Amino acid sequence: MPDPLGFTGAWLDRADQWRADSAALSAALSDPRARCLALDGIDFVPGDGGGLRWEALDPTDDRAAMLLGRDERGVGYFVREPHPAQRIDARSRSVMRLLPLLSAQDLALYGGARSLVDWHARHRFCAACGTPTQLFRAGWGRQCGACRAEHFPRVDPVVIMLAEYEGRVLIGRQPGFPPAVFSALAGFVEPGESLEEAVARELFEEAGIRVADVNYVASQPWPFPSSLMIGCRARALDPALTLDETELEAAIWVDKAEVRAALAGDMDAPFMVPPPLAIARHLLELWAT
Amino acid sequence: MPDPLGFTGAWLDRADQWRADSAALSAALSDPRARCLALDGIDFVPGDGGGLRWEALDPTDDRAAMLLGRDERGVGYFVREPHPAQRIDARSRSVMRLLPLLSAQDLALYGGARSLVDWHARHRFCAACGTPTQLFRAGWGRQCGACRAEHFPRVDPVVIMLAEYEGRVLIGRQPGFPPAVFSALAGFVEPGESLEEAVARELFEEAGIRVADVNYVASQPWPFPSSLMIGCRARALDPALTLDETELEAAIWVDKAEVRAALAGDMDAPFMVPPPLAIARHLLELWAT
Repeated sequence: MPDPLGFTGAWLDRADQWRADSAALSAALSDPRARCLALDGIDFVPGDGGGLRWEALDPTDDRAAMLLGRDERGVGYFVREPHPAQRIDARSRSVMRLLPLLSAQDLALYGGARSLVDWHARHRFCAACGTPTQLFRAGWGRQCGACRAEHFPRVDPVVIMLAEYEGRVLIGRQPGFPPAVFSALAGFVEPGESLEEAVARELFEEAGIRVADVNYVASQPWPFPSSLMIGCRARALDPALTLDETELEAAIWVDKAEVRAALAGDMDAPFMVPPPLAIARHLLELWAT
Repeated sequence: MPDPLGFTGAWLDRADQWRADSAALSAALSDPRARCLALDGIDFVPGDGGGLRWEALDPTDDRAAMLLGRDERGVGYFVREPHPAQRIDARSRSVMRLLPLLSAQDLALYGGARSLVDWHARHRFCAACGTPTQLFRAGWGRQCGACRAEHFPRVDPVVIMLAEYEGRVLIGRQPGFPPAVFSALAGFVEPGESLEEAVARELFEEAGIRVADVNYVASQPWPFPSSLMIGCRARALDPALTLDETELEAAIWVDKAEVRAALAGDMDAPFMVPPPLAIARHLLELWAT
């Protein structure tokens, strides 16, 4: 079996019922055991013994504390909303080099916190009327005091898929990828389509192939900034490719031996696989091994 | 086999490449064959011969025409962005009684158009800085002229699932449901969790049950306003229920004979099933028949 998917397996109970219960939330915030996640912008700060760094809740910090969840003792874990003046670059991947410091459970917890903090930083105003909004539901939404609209953190579903044709699967290279890396093709699900329709549309748009028999494989949250990666397989009806060169600079069909060589890091493999946290690598592992 | 899922199977090619190609888009807009979807707010207007009503593009209408797609002749199909003064109630279900007038393919096309128009109506301002935004990419996004932030139509993933325990599945009633109707439990996927984790969390939050072996079944877009319903099954470890009564007023375990009786509309079935367009009904059909 491949490793568990990256960014899954967070160890906290999200304690949804506390979000709407102001008495329970106040009690959790005034509990001296309450913990606050240390962040530098939206990047995590490594703890002294490895893992995430947790601090006491500072009562002099006037930013709202957002509820990440509670542990089995009933202790609350929080993260502060970002400073209004703070510039956050949601697309920055600077934290990537630090991720191997975290256990899978801490990585998942951090990923969710990162998506939440980033969403607040980029959604301080009401999209319906332009008025500044206030955080509510312990950080799991923002509300407009003028028009009363409620806004909730975004989760953007993305399909990512291996098309298969006679024992080979299709992988592609986006212009910005590191040298030699190929990955599964992917794209955002749009309003008005099912997952299966999104898979078929993206494969046709990007590679010019028609598919049938779309099957779900696995899913993973991806906090750059807040995608839900939905991994699928599909059967290509014909292997001839017509690439959309704004999306892909190359695409190739590879067989199981080639994928296994790439997964093993062989120098003579025809491509390099995506990093271990990516669901694309998981899809290739499941298919080839 | 059950019927195809509601709101899937739209018959237009979305023509993604036209969205970023101003010359192609201009040509499509000035083609006298171009069609514009008739709407009353965000509800569709029935055509004379049934189905959707399509009109010529009115050159005196100064609202932007948003691209729904193109047909096999290369003719573009559009929908106008909503009037700024127009009040749109995204949660209105008034159109529900008209939906049986549409073919499955028209229903899917309308659902996507409805979600898109509704999103524009509720997202005229930049969530990052509060400035009014302008439509771009032929309606598939809005851009802020002040801070340059780009915003894209939301698709909100929702898990909807049948928990199974020794030949029975769990169904529940929300307070607002029509009398006697029970459905599959459901909830929004949150940042930082996989589909499988969202299924497990929602079943525990709403019904107090722990599950294993979560499996994907099917998906469906749901344009009220813009959900992506992701249908799953899971195996409950214990059938004892603890309901969150703010979410569910009742939940029951039902066997296949009871589900079949409900699907058949038997007067003595222990519950009534959701309407045919809902994926919850599809999940029950697949499980029981």
